[in-house]
Order: sequence, then structure tokens, then C-alpha cells
Amino acid sequence: MAKNNGKMVEAITSMDDDFAQWYTDICKKAELVEYTSVKGCMVIRPYGYAIWENIQRILDGMFKETGHENVCMPMFIPESLLQKEKDHVEGFAPEVAWVTHGGSEKLEERLCVRPTSETLFCEHYANIVHSYRDLPKLYNQWVSVVRWEKTTRPFLRSREFLWQEGHTIHATAEEAIAETEKMLDVYAEFCEKHLCMPVVKGRKTESDKFAGAVATYAIEALMHDGKALQAGTSHYFGDGFAKAFNIQYTDKDNTLKYPHQTSWGMTTRLIGAVIMTHGDNSGLVLPPDVAPIQVVIVPVAQHKEGVLEKANELLQILKAQGLRVKLDDSDNSPGWKFAEYEMKGVPLRVEIGPKDIENNKCVCAVRYSGEKRDVPLADFADTVAELLKNEIPQGMYKKAEENRERRTYKCTSTDEMKKVLEENGDGFIKAMWCGSEECEDKVKELTGAGSRCIPNEQEHIADTCVCCGKKADKMVLWGKAY
Amino acid sequence: MAKNNGKMVEAITSMDDDFAQWYTDICKKAELVEYTSVKGCMVIRPYGYAIWENIQRILDGMFKETGHENVCMPMFIPESLLQKEKDHVEGFAPEVAWVTHGGSEKLEERLCVRPTSETLFCEHYANIVHSYRDLPKLYNQWVSVVRWEKTTRPFLRSREFLWQEGHTIHATAEEAIAETEKMLDVYAEFCEKHLCMPVVKGRKTESDKFAGAVATYAIEALMHDGKALQAGTSHYFGDGFAKAFNIQYTDKDNTLKYPHQTSWGMTTRLIGAVIMTHGDNSGLVLPPDVAPIQVVIVPVAQHKEGVLEKANELLQILKAQGLRVKLDDSDNSPGWKFAEYEMKGVPLRVEIGPKDIENNKCVCAVRYSGEKRDVPLADFADTVAELLKNEIPQGMYKKAEENRERRTYKCTSTDEMKKVLEENGDGFIKAMWCGSEECEDKVKELTGAGSRCIPNEQEHIADTCVCCGKKADKMVLWGKAY
Repeated sequence: MAKNNGKMVEAITSMDDDFAQWYTDICKKAELVEYTSVKGCMVIRPYGYAIWENIQRILDGMFKETGHENVCMPMFIPESLLQKEKDHVEGFAPEVAWVTHGGSEKLEERLCVRPTSETLFCEHYANIVHSYRDLPKLYNQWVSVVRWEKTTRPFLRSREFLWQEGHTIHATAEEAIAETEKMLDVYAEFCEKHLCMPVVKGRKTESDKFAGAVATYAIEALMHDGKALQAGTSHYFGDGFAKAFNIQYTDKDNTLKYPHQTSWGMTTRLIGAVIMTHGDNSGLVLPPDVAPIQVVIVPVAQHKEGVLEKANELLQILKAQGLRVKLDDSDNSPGWKFAEYEMKGVPLRVEIGPKDIENNKCVCAVRYSGEKRDVPLADFADTVAELLKNEIPQGMYKKAEENRERRTYKCTSTDEMKKVLEENGDGFIKAMWCGSEECEDKVKELTGAGSRCIPNEQEHIADTCVCCGKKADKMVLWGKAY
Repeated sequence: MAKNNGKMVEAITSMDDDFAQWYTDICKKAELVEYTSVKGCMVIRPYGYAIWENIQRILDGMFKETGHENVCMPMFIPESLLQKEKDHVEGFAPEVAWVTHGGSEKLEERLCVRPTSETLFCEHYANIVHSYRDLPKLYNQWVSVVRWEKTTRPFLRSREFLWQEGHTIHATAEEAIAETEKMLDVYAEFCEKHLCMPVVKGRKTESDKFAGAVATYAIEALMHDGKALQAGTSHYFGDGFAKAFNIQYTDKDNTLKYPHQTSWGMTTRLIGAVIMTHGDNSGLVLPPDVAPIQVVIVPVAQHKEGVLEKANELLQILKAQGLRVKLDDSDNSPGWKFAEYEMKGVPLRVEIGPKDIENNKCVCAVRYSGEKRDVPLADFADTVAELLKNEIPQGMYKKAEENRERRTYKCTSTDEMKKVLEENGDGFIKAMWCGSEECEDKVKELTGAGSRCIPNEQEHIADTCVCCGKKADKMVLWGKAY
């Protein structure tokens, strides 16, 4: 426990002792969230929200580069509108919040707070799509949605969460399927490049599809504790919604046709994924691209002549590079500051004191690896840029990938699956599946591991289903999930 | 009516014939919004939302420069929390939407959808503010809020609207008052510099204050039709909320004290203000800083050799300057394109055809003034930059200011007020007020014009109240309001 000025950085629970408590400790001690009297909802505090702003900025840029436009739909959906697509309402109605009164008056029709906005987009499409010239429409919105969950955890599962929902409508099935796949690629690229988190791209089984979808694709990541986390989904709807909402367009050949739709979403859950992919027993570890503070400069013996001046010089050098950098010249001790910014996951710490100045150098401490190195001041700007742009992100990705690979197993029977999971703890299991829902359920019942996805990159583990022993040609990724 | 390819740009209702219809026509024809089956709520379409994104980006930068951090509170407020501050709940309870059920279960306590978030911020402050070292907290959030209005109009008054709400908490009253005033200045600067809309800064009368505030400050603008529009408000709360929510901090002298709070907000209403300040009978007129497309390039006789090449060259020149520019090389006629981008309020149109190329020039058409001028291609980049940065914004501001001044009158009696308004139509009236609520109500009853604010910049119009004739030392700005 580093202590100074009556303030202290308390140690957090070790992830080996209690992973859930370790997670909650980081959420609180890194000042990401705070609880409220609104059950299942949270305050996202400045440091947590700044991570989300960085995620938003990068993702929004990727959406715009791929031709998408932002819109904003109402947060309410009339009950009759929600009911128009049968599978969709069955999937969502049990978990929506209902508005029944406006002021003191009872509403003629109940409104739900959007759990997702397919129905609103469909109503809008019906108004604005008439001709092949009106297609495609490539839309996205950044909003919050509400799902009335029973048990909640910060970022991972809360009654209200922030997300983006992309919604697109196309003339043909081929175009819509290509869009679904393209956005899954965008999601995977975002996670791997900017969050330094390896993901598996794949398709969900029938029983795990989004309510109303023909096909759901997902990216799956593996957390420190061996549990899987779905980091993003992309859905292909066919023309089911178009038929339910009577959306039709006149094609070039002058006939009326139903268009094809997609939707795709990522949420504040990504912040939970970052915590559980990179965090350690000293706290959060943030990828440079989404870190609110990329570099913290900590002066050592700052009362000594020239130290703060030099620290300020280094600050200006990094600011000029457009980096998010902070100089902490508060009267807390260097030890307290080290612990504080380690807790907050700042990717790089620069230490500068009288001896460093004497030797024309400073110390760079890399958060994810714990490595400390002397850097000549002449190389300072280039070294920091290189660390943040390449060395740290690549190193973080590699570490996460190694962790995943270490916890990924191939099995050919449910007995083997059970044994592997019991001996090694949770992880990903690659095993063949015949395609029947019965086997899918039985694997989960016997081993605790459910189907995460049918990976795009298939491997041939065996000729037969891990469960029933019948002929099987699909490899499924199994695991326990958040 | 310009027509091409079966598409047409229909003329809109003249603002002189029917101002309300003119406004609605622009909202629809410029593709800013679309109606939905959710009563009183709207879809903000890509072109409308892009204006909001520009407003957000600029304002958010101004907030961060003044030291504010973004956070995100839940969208729900438990009824008991809303009731903690007496004046506040009285003001808002009659117009909130109530959530009573989650899925099929009735909630133990009703939740309202936030109409504003003071109560949530107060609950959070009580958790995190303990010492003078924790102060000030300078927070803001970008969210939507819900108020159950009876009559609604796109942007101006809708049941759900987008806004930012700033919330700050300070050790002393002086600091909090300074913050309230500072943010009013930020709002005024934003409106005048970036929206080219002159505003009057002032204080609201007691009867017009925000529910729970000690003082409410506002900026007021005058629309084309002579009606006033409140464009932003900034509230000083004193320590009333702190006492109601038991927020206390230990000061340097080791005694417990109540902190002082503020809040301030601007909304999507600003888009309505832009429409009614700058729009004309050809459609929208957008200030360059918030226009989704700042320059549209329209090739003339684009099938002729070299035209599209030259148009593309001009496009690249402007893109390299970081401008938001579009080249419309679709097969619609130039006439159709002119009408379309006039409707959409694009600040500058560049026309380039074979004759222009022959003469090494292009034509620049300024949307707000209707002026067209030949520009030598050698001066193209500089001329466009200067137009967008200075000439157009300054010209738009001046035009709006002249319109406001032409419709601002000084009166010394309610009879004179009535006469002036009857003869000239609506506008701002400067007149003295004794300070009594009775006179305030009576002026409104007699003339239709209510108190908009007590301007910071006072003028001495007379010695006596415009209503009761008693001694008066306050000049009030009166007008009918949106």
C-alpha cells in the first residue's frame, strides 16, 4: 500500500484468489464506475467514459470510412410496433422496461424503452425506401439501450448499457450478407488492432441466434480466467423484417421487391473485456489507443533544481506529438504516483530525477510487461512514439494471444472435455459437432461449456461429433461465457 | 420546381405565407427529420444528425478546454430520489414518463426517465465528495432526456430531445456563480461565432427560473418571425441541493461545509434556431462551422471533355484543406442540383464548366446572400478558405443582427407595446420593470409578450415600470417565445 498525504492506493484483491472480486475492485479503484440507487445501472465516471470516447472515436471513423451515416431514433417503441416481427418480440418482450404513464396520465398504449432498434429502423425504412435508387441505406446510431437483467455486473451486464447499433438495408441478399461479414471484419480488426485483444470470428448456432435473424455472426475473446466473452455481433435478417413491416422497393425491372437487412452492435462491455484480457494484480492495463492518459510523467525529487523544468520539457515534446500525456507534479510521493497510475493502467510511465538529468536520460516503465529501461533524452521522442505505436500494442496482443492459446484445447469426447476443464480450469475447447441442438444442449449439460461459435477458420479435429459420435463436419468452439 | 430523372426538388411554403409550415417543410425537405409512430418523438436523419455532430464536436472541445470531463449517468431516476429536492420535483414530476414494469414484473418503485439529471449527480456527489481536495468536480454528459409535452414540433419541442447537461460542484458560492456565468459566456460565444446567431445574455426573472435554482441565466435569440428562442440556460443552485442530498465536505479548517452547485444545458433545439435565424424561401442556410457539406462542386456540361477532371482537381484542393466538400457528378441536371443544395443550406456552391475552364476561373455562389462571383482558379483555394472562415460567417451574423435590431423596440407603456407589436409584428421589446411578478404577468396578459430575461447589458429606457408606473431600475427584454 503506497501512502501519501493521507491518500492511499489500496491494494486490490488478487485475481488468483477471487477473480470476480478482482474485477469489481478494478472497476472501483481505477474510478471507472460507481454504483447508484438505480438497481442494475451505473455511473460511468470520467476515466471510464474517456475510454469509451476513445473507443467511439475510432469505431465511428471505421464506420464512416465504410460508408455509414449516423442517425438517431426515438428511445421508445410502441408495444404494437415491437410485436410486428414474431421471433423478435418473443426474444425481447420478457426483458424490456415498460413506460405506462406520461406525467399523471395513463398512456393509451404502453411504450418499451428500446432494447434494440430494428423495429424503429424498419418503420423508418418503410417511409423512405421506395426505389432501387434509395438503396442501400447504411445507418448507425450511438445510444443506450435497456434490458431488464436479473443479475448485473459493471460493463459486462447492466440494465442500461451504451452501444452502437448499425442497421443497413440492401437490394439483394448477397449485398446484405457481404455487409454482415464486412462489419464482423471491422469489429475483429478494431479488437485486435486497437484493443490488442485476439478474437475468433464465427457463426452462432441456430439456438444462439439474435431474435429475428437468419444468421448471427460473432467475435469471441478469451478472458484471463478462461471464460469466453462475446465482443461483438453482426446479424443477417434476410427479408423477414421487410415482409413483417411491408418494406418494398421498385427495382430497375419495374417489379416490387423486398429488400434485405442487417444489424450489428458493440457495447461498453468492451471495457470489461479490456479489463479481463490485460489487467493484472496491480490494476488496469490499457491499450495505448484507448487509454485516456497514454503517458504519465513522474518527476523524482521534484523539489530539486531543474527537475520540474525538465519534466515540463518532456511533457511539451510528447504533447507536440499529439499524445495524451499527463505530468503529475502534485505533492504525493513518487511511490504513491507509481501505484496510482499502475492501478489506472497508463501504458507508459516516464520517470525523471536529478540523476537522470545528470546522465541525459530518463526511465521508461512499460505497464503491461513491468519492464523499465533507461532512454537517452536524445532518443526520447522517437522511443516513446515507437513504444506506443508498435512495441506496446504488439506485446500486449502477443501476451493475450499466448494466454488464449495456452487455454485452448482439442477434444474428441465429452469425457475428454470434462477432464480437460477439470484439470486446467476454464478455456476454449475445439471439438466437432454434428449440428443437432440435442447434442449442443447435452455438451453444455455434461461439461458446462456451451457453443460459442462455429469458427470461420475450421480445423478437422475428428470425423465424428464430440457428443453423439455420428459423422460431423463442423468444428465448434466451446466454452463457459460471460 | 427543378426536375430531373423523375426526381424533383419541390418548392417549400413561403415563410411570409405560413411561417410554421415553412419551418416544417424545411425539416422534411432538407431531410433533417422524419416522423415516427412514437408520438412527439422523431427520427433525426443523417443530414440533421451530422449538424448535431458538428455542434457536439465544437461544444465538447469548448467544455474540455474549460476543464470539464464527460461522464454518463443512468437514464432512470427512482421516484424517491426525484422527490428529495422539493422545488425540483414540483417542477418536473408533472411532465415525466414513468417506467412501472420490467418485463412482466411490476417494479417495487416507479422509475422516471430522466427529464434532467440533477438528482443523479447529487447522489453521486454524496458518494465521492468528502474533502475540499475533491472539489471542484466539473462534469458534463451528452444524452437524451424526456419531457412529456402536449404539443410538439421537430427540434423546438419534442418529448425526447438530445442535449448536453453540465453539472458542477464547488467549495464556495463565489466559485459556483463564476462557473454559471462562465458557461453562459461559452454558450454565447458558441452561438455567435459558430452558429452566426446573435444572442442576448441575461438573467431570468424569479417566476421563470429552473425548478430548484437560486438563479437562472439564459441566452435569447430572435427568429425571422420575431419570436424569441431561448438557446441555452445556466443555473446557480446555491447549496439547496447539497442540503437536500446531504452532500458535505471537510474544509481546510477541518469543519464540515455544504458545497455549491451549477448546471447548464443546450439541446437539439439549436438546429431549430439555425433554421429560423438563417433559412429563407429556398430552404435551409447553414453556418459553415456546422454544415455537414461546406462546399458543393457542381460541374456544368459534365459530359464535355475535361470538365469532370477539373471538378475533381478542385475537390482535391479543398479536401486537402480539411474542408467537408462534395462533388456531385450524378446525372441530375445542374438546375436540379442547384435547387437541392440550396434546400440543404450548403454555404458555398462552386460551378465549373467548359467556358470557365477556358477562362481559368470558376463560379462561387454564396448561399446566404445569393451572390455569384467569378474566381480565378489561381485564387481558388485562398478565396474558398476566406469565404468559409470569415466572409460568410461574418455576413450571416451581420444579416441576423440587422434583422434582430430592425425588430427590437423600446417602449415606456403597455399601450405603446401593444401598438408597436400590432403595427410591426412580433419582436423584442426593451422596457423597464419594477420587479413585481404581478406586473410581469399583466404585461404578458395585455401584450402577449412575456419576460425573456433581464439583460446583462442594461439600458435606461425610462424611470418607471412599463406596467404599474412605479419607480423601476431594471430593463427587461420582452417577447413572445418558442
